[in-house]
Amino acid sequence: MKEVKTKKDISGIRIDPPDKTAAEKAKAVFDSIAKPLDGLGDLEGMICRIAGIMHTEDINIGRRAAVIMCADNGIVEEGVSQSGKEVTLAVARALGKGISSSCTLGRAARVDVIPVDIGIDCDERIRGVRDHKVAKGTRNFLKQPAMTEKEMLKALETGIEITRELKKSGYDMLITGEMGIGNTTTSTAVLAAALDLDSDGITGRGAGIDDEGLSRKKEVIREALGRYRFNDEKDEAERAFNILRSVGGLDIAGLAGLAIGGALCKVPVVLDGLISSAAAVIADMMVPGVRDYLLPSHAGREKGNMSALSYLGLSPYINCNMALGEGTGGILLFPLIDAVYAFYKNAAGFSDYSMDEYRRHF
Amino acid sequence: MKEVKTKKDISGIRIDPPDKTAAEKAKAVFDSIAKPLDGLGDLEGMICRIAGIMHTEDINIGRRAAVIMCADNGIVEEGVSQSGKEVTLAVARALGKGISSSCTLGRAARVDVIPVDIGIDCDERIRGVRDHKVAKGTRNFLKQPAMTEKEMLKALETGIEITRELKKSGYDMLITGEMGIGNTTTSTAVLAAALDLDSDGITGRGAGIDDEGLSRKKEVIREALGRYRFNDEKDEAERAFNILRSVGGLDIAGLAGLAIGGALCKVPVVLDGLISSAAAVIADMMVPGVRDYLLPSHAGREKGNMSALSYLGLSPYINCNMALGEGTGGILLFPLIDAVYAFYKNAAGFSDYSMDEYRRHF
Repeated sequence: MKEVKTKKDISGIRIDPPDKTAAEKAKAVFDSIAKPLDGLGDLEGMICRIAGIMHTEDINIGRRAAVIMCADNGIVEEGVSQSGKEVTLAVARALGKGISSSCTLGRAARVDVIPVDIGIDCDERIRGVRDHKVAKGTRNFLKQPAMTEKEMLKALETGIEITRELKKSGYDMLITGEMGIGNTTTSTAVLAAALDLDSDGITGRGAGIDDEGLSRKKEVIREALGRYRFNDEKDEAERAFNILRSVGGLDIAGLAGLAIGGALCKVPVVLDGLISSAAAVIADMMVPGVRDYLLPSHAGREKGNMSALSYLGLSPYINCNMALGEGTGGILLFPLIDAVYAFYKNAAGFSDYSMDEYRRHF
Repeated sequence: MKEVKTKKDISGIRIDPPDKTAAEKAKAVFDSIAKPLDGLGDLEGMICRIAGIMHTEDINIGRRAAVIMCADNGIVEEGVSQSGKEVTLAVARALGKGISSSCTLGRAARVDVIPVDIGIDCDERIRGVRDHKVAKGTRNFLKQPAMTEKEMLKALETGIEITRELKKSGYDMLITGEMGIGNTTTSTAVLAAALDLDSDGITGRGAGIDDEGLSRKKEVIREALGRYRFNDEKDEAERAFNILRSVGGLDIAGLAGLAIGGALCKVPVVLDGLISSAAAVIADMMVPGVRDYLLPSHAGREKGNMSALSYLGLSPYINCNMALGEGTGGILLFPLIDAVYAFYKNAAGFSDYSMDEYRRHF
């Protein structure tokens, strides 16, 4: 891909559909295993989807990375989060040191964690964190658009480029993760605008804001959304650019780029929670077909996540009321994927049972 | 425990409650990890529950087995299943050879699979399968009670004894699995009777019966339930014995024994799907408090499973429309448990972040 200079460089991207034949061949493998048809349900579908995305039923999933986009959000000054923005930097440092929650889970699940500074409000170059800083955080979107068009395009490009690079260095699958105080606020605003939902209905507690904070958060999002006009746009891609730029975050933009990059590179992209899903919705509005390259992971505690997944035609595999971020939900899908992958590769067929005659019935 | 000669030997069992202090100490570990409070949601609760059951926050979960109770069901002659009962034997042989679906998944998830012949309709002693045959299948419960009281008690005792033996030989956790053509029919009848539900509403397709077969299955269950009177029993335990003996299966009885054994031995018992859950409901009705020693795994395709889990106060972690049996859903929970366990043991605290000051806010 050439450098992203204009919105058209993104919205002009065309995505090949996944390979139906490869997906069907993968399903045929499951159907040859001695078990009830569709016995592993959606987990069979998950492997078939990966086969379709990779354009082969002979899939490899051994190398995977969670890309953690870290950024600050100007809206935090409105009191929408229980944490101060300094926590973004503190957790980014922990990500760089390999001691954050996602790093510990990543080691258990054999997922590499790759933290990216795409917009932390600091001057420090954080050890162990890739420096792709587009800006030192966004502006307060209650007062002005969160970012400039140039910043938005740069963040999108960063996500796409990271995917291409990781694909080149041998990664088979990616997870979209994030760290950024205030980013359930930005994501909720993005989703409410994108899906034309009542924002109050999907505004949640994020990392655990109290009742008073929740009211404030709802009010801020509602008021901010009233300041922008997104539905004048006839074009879905234009609408997505407008929403992302106005009320989004640099982490969301970077993750949208990752999702687009996954579709371009035929790399399955596993979503984490609300922020990942909001980014995926935006990506699919900009570049139709991106959704076919995504995999859901968990439902999560934020209602908006389910609205986004449902829009994308995805249904989460894990339902555990998680609300951690840092890609942890996506990382936790991998132990499950690995077990089902081992089954896909090694399970015995009907002929091994000497029970070909029952095949029809079992 | 002395030999089970009467129903009183079961219903007289008293279960110690789990250790609240151990569970609270486990929660304190999670709360000391640098992440949002309850960030891993129900997965934190899962580890805390295991700590409570094991009466220590210093839990071990490295050795685990799926006990697969295999039995035939007389009701199959009414055409309630798409498979003939010979498939029970065929799969039991595959379990014995280590090539069945649960064996393959068990190797991936480091779960030992222990198949038990508790009532297969065959004369063969199946290689690799423990012989605890109580009877060569049950009777057709549309015509007469499925088993005698003696058979029921023997199957319950078998489950309890196996748990005690596995605990003694060092197993930390158990999974309840089953193989038996016709056992979604028996389990549905058991659950409808036990929970006083309309059986039509929870009768599913099992391993994949067609529309005509499904109608027949509904009719058979409805008609059979009309032949028995369970609600005359004032005593819950008596009601459970009556239901299990009349419309249950030897696999269900064995699994109910396993669940009771788990509570007696302080071993967490992970449920698989409908049949496991029906057995757990029966076990908890016979011996109140058994439910506190159980863990759910997945929702599954059979609606009855959710009714049972909801009665038991359990909410499944995985939601993948599975319908395989052989304990596979329970086995698939272990990769997830292992990842969260590694997190519980190794994750960094707030002090490692040099961010004690943010603890309150994060």
